[in-house]
Amino acid sequence: MKWYENAAEHADVVLSTRVRLARNLKDYPFPARLNEKGKDEVNAIVKEALLCGERAQEFDYVPMRSLSHTQCVSLAEKHLISPEFASDSAGRALILSKDEDVSIMLCEEDHVRVQVIYPGLSLEAAYEKANAIDEALSQKVSIAFDERLGYLTQCPTNLGTGLRASVMLHLPALARSGAMPRLANTVAKLGLILRGAYGEGSKPVGDLYQLSNQVTLGISETAAIRNLASIANQIITQEKSAREALLKDDVFIDRIWRAFGILNSAHMLSCNEFMDLVSLVRIGAAEGVLNIPLQTLTRLMVEMQPATLNTAQGRSCTAAERDVLRAKAVKEALR
Amino acid sequence: MKWYENAAEHADVVLSTRVRLARNLKDYPFPARLNEKGKDEVNAIVKEALLCGERAQEFDYVPMRSLSHTQCVSLAEKHLISPEFASDSAGRALILSKDEDVSIMLCEEDHVRVQVIYPGLSLEAAYEKANAIDEALSQKVSIAFDERLGYLTQCPTNLGTGLRASVMLHLPALARSGAMPRLANTVAKLGLILRGAYGEGSKPVGDLYQLSNQVTLGISETAAIRNLASIANQIITQEKSAREALLKDDVFIDRIWRAFGILNSAHMLSCNEFMDLVSLVRIGAAEGVLNIPLQTLTRLMVEMQPATLNTAQGRSCTAAERDVLRAKAVKEALR
Repeated sequence: MKWYENAAEHADVVLSTRVRLARNLKDYPFPARLNEKGKDEVNAIVKEALLCGERAQEFDYVPMRSLSHTQCVSLAEKHLISPEFASDSAGRALILSKDEDVSIMLCEEDHVRVQVIYPGLSLEAAYEKANAIDEALSQKVSIAFDERLGYLTQCPTNLGTGLRASVMLHLPALARSGAMPRLANTVAKLGLILRGAYGEGSKPVGDLYQLSNQVTLGISETAAIRNLASIANQIITQEKSAREALLKDDVFIDRIWRAFGILNSAHMLSCNEFMDLVSLVRIGAAEGVLNIPLQTLTRLMVEMQPATLNTAQGRSCTAAERDVLRAKAVKEALR
Repeated sequence: MKWYENAAEHADVVLSTRVRLARNLKDYPFPARLNEKGKDEVNAIVKEALLCGERAQEFDYVPMRSLSHTQCVSLAEKHLISPEFASDSAGRALILSKDEDVSIMLCEEDHVRVQVIYPGLSLEAAYEKANAIDEALSQKVSIAFDERLGYLTQCPTNLGTGLRASVMLHLPALARSGAMPRLANTVAKLGLILRGAYGEGSKPVGDLYQLSNQVTLGISETAAIRNLASIANQIITQEKSAREALLKDDVFIDRIWRAFGILNSAHMLSCNEFMDLVSLVRIGAAEGVLNIPLQTLTRLMVEMQPATLNTAQGRSCTAAERDVLRAKAVKEALR
């Protein structure tokens, strides 16, 4: 079972929580200053350190050069690796748990980037899991750490905790109420960033927003996590009350039902149209208008992305073929 | 069971066939020159002549003044009476069969207007039925008839046979191919009229067209019927071959499915939107894309009209209320 197939806390508004720790080996230069051989060496050390005991069963070690371009893009679509990491495979490797909740990029910007992704709002649990992996690593290798600066990272914005935590929020009601620009401003003053999770411009695809921390220096990991959780909870409360108002509008209820009708019947669905429709269906499912498990929708939002569809097919399909495959898969999932 | 609930020939393209005979009593002036008392007298004579024997059970006699405005409009929506007939009730009456396939307007433009409406293409059968009623009438009362001119009617365009026959055609494929203006021209040269059945302008609501005869003088009833049937069959063939081409297009198949999805899910449906969507669903049902009996769709196209919905509710609803009622009824019918 993948992480997105599980029920979760605050799943009505929060799709997923991600925590990432950036770490570097003390005895090696940053990847930018390593050649391929040096990177392979770093990767071998980390692999050796982490893939022992129980973890040897739980994780796969995947040299990036063993993957096709489509498989790489699919991993990026699932947020298991960064798009940058997908763009070049030389000297890079991925340690991935079977249920895809832990992914460890080796020799991206830093030597080690541990990422944990959990469904719903579960910042503490995700941080604990990432922390456990960090501790296991620290027991086997020397990590670059400075008493005054904290963990050393290539980019100074990660110095200190090396922690980046984020939650993926589904905010259709706040987005419709026009509250997003003001909210993004408020949140920025509190050291967080709130922005569209997919797509550029004023209306993010699928009404999905990512809330993440920015400050890594002069703050403890637990304080950063607590701060993010607290703001996330406030946004959730605002979204819920905006939904309450929205759901009193028959025209909006009608839009939810129509979106469901189209997803349930269309013969072809582009990715953008799918995301817009599933956003309406998700609010309907979250608020009791439609009887659909939220995990089903989260799973579709992950699996209906272009490269992930291609990967599932085992080949590179045309956009038109994908639109037909997507419509078919969505119909089956909603049946 | 109403006429539109029966399966019928060529129902994939033809919704209904109507035949109308205009007759006048020899011994009375045309209705335009009769006062209310005179009209009541005419109505009583016709009622006496027609509603005897078996027909007394089969038909209802309905003085128009006994109906509400909404009921009158509903009868017009169902094409059981003319809109003109619905507009004034004084001295007017309707003889209506229980299954609504025969409606006889008394003291509309002429004393007697016998109309038969059958599902699908069944011009001969409809004419025979109308003719039988005409013969029954002629046996009891003297009909205004001239050896040279034929049946006398108030409007000279009806002189002769007094026969108006029409078929209601569903032509979504020809309409989409842009063939309609040319087809209407061709048909006009053959003495027929082809025009949108509902709505004005270039795109008739629901892709419904009415093909009717114009010539009543110097032609026998059977020749007029045969001529109309022959042109109707040619249009049916053209529509079927245009559909064949259209159904090869995945985008069109997608539109059919989406229309079905919306009809099957929407919380509110305006009459115009319903007619446009049901047009797509009907071609899908006719051509085997969707598994829905054509009668179900024909019935909905009749019963979802505004005044007919009001009449079914037994009260005058607002447009918004009707849109919700319509969506609910459509969903139930398609389930």
